[in-house]
Amino acid sequence: MPPNPTPPGRLLKAPENFIDPDGVRTVFGQARQGRRDFIRSAFVSATAGAAALAAAPRARAQANPVPAAGGDPNILQLPAHSTGLGQPVATDGYGKPSQYEGNVQRRQSPGLTQTAQSSVSFAPLQSLFGIVTPSGLHFERHHQGWWDVDPSKHRLMLNGSDPRLMKTPKVFTMDEVMRMPSVSRFHFIECGANTGMEWGNVAVPTVQYSHGMLSCSEFTGVPLKILLDQCGVDYKRARFVLAEGADGSSMTRTIPMEMIERGEVLVAYGQNGEMLRPENGYPLRLVVPGVQGVSWVKYLRRIEVGDKPWASKDEAVHYIDLMPDGLHRQYSSIQECKSVVTTPSGGQVLLDKGFYNISGLAWSGRGKVTAVDVTVDGGRNWRRARLQTPVMSKCLTRFNIDWVWDGKATLVQSRASDETGYVQPTYPQLRAVRGTRSIYHNNAIQTWLVQDSGEVRNVQLS
Amino acid sequence: MPPNPTPPGRLLKAPENFIDPDGVRTVFGQARQGRRDFIRSAFVSATAGAAALAAAPRARAQANPVPAAGGDPNILQLPAHSTGLGQPVATDGYGKPSQYEGNVQRRQSPGLTQTAQSSVSFAPLQSLFGIVTPSGLHFERHHQGWWDVDPSKHRLMLNGSDPRLMKTPKVFTMDEVMRMPSVSRFHFIECGANTGMEWGNVAVPTVQYSHGMLSCSEFTGVPLKILLDQCGVDYKRARFVLAEGADGSSMTRTIPMEMIERGEVLVAYGQNGEMLRPENGYPLRLVVPGVQGVSWVKYLRRIEVGDKPWASKDEAVHYIDLMPDGLHRQYSSIQECKSVVTTPSGGQVLLDKGFYNISGLAWSGRGKVTAVDVTVDGGRNWRRARLQTPVMSKCLTRFNIDWVWDGKATLVQSRASDETGYVQPTYPQLRAVRGTRSIYHNNAIQTWLVQDSGEVRNVQLS
Repeated sequence: MPPNPTPPGRLLKAPENFIDPDGVRTVFGQARQGRRDFIRSAFVSATAGAAALAAAPRARAQANPVPAAGGDPNILQLPAHSTGLGQPVATDGYGKPSQYEGNVQRRQSPGLTQTAQSSVSFAPLQSLFGIVTPSGLHFERHHQGWWDVDPSKHRLMLNGSDPRLMKTPKVFTMDEVMRMPSVSRFHFIECGANTGMEWGNVAVPTVQYSHGMLSCSEFTGVPLKILLDQCGVDYKRARFVLAEGADGSSMTRTIPMEMIERGEVLVAYGQNGEMLRPENGYPLRLVVPGVQGVSWVKYLRRIEVGDKPWASKDEAVHYIDLMPDGLHRQYSSIQECKSVVTTPSGGQVLLDKGFYNISGLAWSGRGKVTAVDVTVDGGRNWRRARLQTPVMSKCLTRFNIDWVWDGKATLVQSRASDETGYVQPTYPQLRAVRGTRSIYHNNAIQTWLVQDSGEVRNVQLS
Repeated sequence: MPPNPTPPGRLLKAPENFIDPDGVRTVFGQARQGRRDFIRSAFVSATAGAAALAAAPRARAQANPVPAAGGDPNILQLPAHSTGLGQPVATDGYGKPSQYEGNVQRRQSPGLTQTAQSSVSFAPLQSLFGIVTPSGLHFERHHQGWWDVDPSKHRLMLNGSDPRLMKTPKVFTMDEVMRMPSVSRFHFIECGANTGMEWGNVAVPTVQYSHGMLSCSEFTGVPLKILLDQCGVDYKRARFVLAEGADGSSMTRTIPMEMIERGEVLVAYGQNGEMLRPENGYPLRLVVPGVQGVSWVKYLRRIEVGDKPWASKDEAVHYIDLMPDGLHRQYSSIQECKSVVTTPSGGQVLLDKGFYNISGLAWSGRGKVTAVDVTVDGGRNWRRARLQTPVMSKCLTRFNIDWVWDGKATLVQSRASDETGYVQPTYPQLRAVRGTRSIYHNNAIQTWLVQDSGEVRNVQLS
């Protein structure tokens, strides 16, 4: 029997079976009788559809329609969102995620630093898709807290450590910077200390804490080369620049002029379509593709050209690699090829055996990722993952691969390689060269243990 | 004389000249003496840099350092953000734009519809960079308001209008959808009614209102084909699907199976790295690349396969094109090649003559944009703009071109073409075919009048 036309919101008898093909067909048969009939029956189709949904035996949780309070459990009521008037369009106010996504947050690692102004807040990689990191979830790393700097008062100065290196030092307002030739590019940014806890045998619980000092955005700005050209730089002598931030930490980093001459280094004001966020350097940040995050100086106020590296406090005391022989490796700023499976990852629970889409991220500070191999048996067999296009240079690349889990405990790993031929190392390979006492530049293969309970744990293979 | 080491926040005498080369060199000379000296002098370099900035004669507004209250105007104080402790890293809470960007908002066009639940909120294209639209600024168009649907209760049903078209109807939970093979792709979405006011001679004041029913995101989801394959669809008979939303408007749209068989149509849950926003269909939305936004059904709860188009209310009464002969054009859902200059655009004011970066967006529902030409003299001369890579199919493409404004009134236009050879039409060309009484699918060349005052106005060339 075809259901009677029923106004939305009224009670509707649920069909006994998953789908009543006659009923469904009849409803849409009515719709095809003509436009007038269709308009009348549009509400019917919605009602019938939702009711069929609700009664589906495959559904494991309560469907949208809810049983009428105190009534026959076979009598279902459509949910409010299928019958009522919703929220109006935004007239002001900036959009927010769903209330059901409240758990998807940047998170601080308690005790990592003495004060929250010099701490880290990790991006929730386990909950992210694709390659773009929403700016509201971009990882944070501050040296003296973040500021919301007034762009009308902010200035960028370009000068030289020696007048022979630059003819005409200049100061730019934001208006002046934003009138200049603009480029937009997708790049990852990774803190040099990302995965730093794992040098020893500390396995932090989730990919948020193990790899979450990693984000990726579309940056917009002016190539630094264009600004330097206006200042009459002698590129034969001026082989380095010092970038200085305006916040209290006076962050300064040396950047080789070679990178700037390639046109890659940007004085950026835009991130993911809008202005940079305050915690990421609003209104100006240096974008240094492929290089560790500390060189992407926030609140950028000054670029000085020089003829040798500065060995500033942030490159002489911090961000140096303690090697097995006790010496420090300095200016090791390129983030080498690396990857991590984000689903399944530590802290997640697989619902049951069967099909899963394994998904993760790969990146290289040297160019494009060329391949990601994934093992679901601790390294005995490796299969090539699908790389999501476009694969961009010095940018995150999303990979996916099919997996049918048999319900038994196993080890999941990913291994990336880049266009230079470099292959992401295992922990034994990395430690043979770098030892175990470093903080920075850990790009080893990550291992997740899927237990037979479905719970996933971070483990280290020695 | 080198400046004395001065603690941050103390008063510092500003140098008489823009930059004191000796002073600057000496400060950094100290830094190079060694690590210990450098650490002590790090504050000095910051202070000297900021002071030089402040005294720069080229700076047109007040620099970061502010004159000490009631004191000598040559005595400058560093701003709070260069001396104090800033804000801590996020421990919870979702990040927000700068307080100085409060004007960058979606905006409703008052009076466009009778209720705000069936209205439009336009994206602020004039303030956006690159191609990604931040999800908090993505345009909104609702038919019965937006809802924040509980994903644990949401279901997606796939069924057939006739049992011969689909063997096994199914209902999927969100968990089930998210376990399946996943893809991530950048696509634009444009409402069919975008630029609809301009069919007549109404020239709305800004690009936000003329073109702001346009956004672009990285979408993540499952190709609909994969879901249909599991239901045993007979693709020889089932040449169309009907997509149905769960909100009260019961939005239904016919999609040709050909698009789905190409693998392009996605059942999407992710947008710009995170879950869809409630106002954009959380937790499931159909992504139909190249097709007008109304077909990107939000709160997607049902896909029905059929053997002919449904002529649903949303495709028989709405979203049809009134042609000059009085007939309606139906199922005209592809968004043809179009472009618009976003800077300079209506309502903006050029500061003075000189160099500007002209920037804008181009897109085509048929594939990739191949070229954008720009005129700054009302069409007498056209120059080829730089297309920002990667240029992706059915995705926004950002273009930029240099311009030196001579300060005289002029007309600025952009004209895009796509890989099918289609060239964006002028208004006379478009109206010759389509008349002036349509609402939908206006892709004509936009003209901005730059007045000699620098003020930019929307004008229509007939």
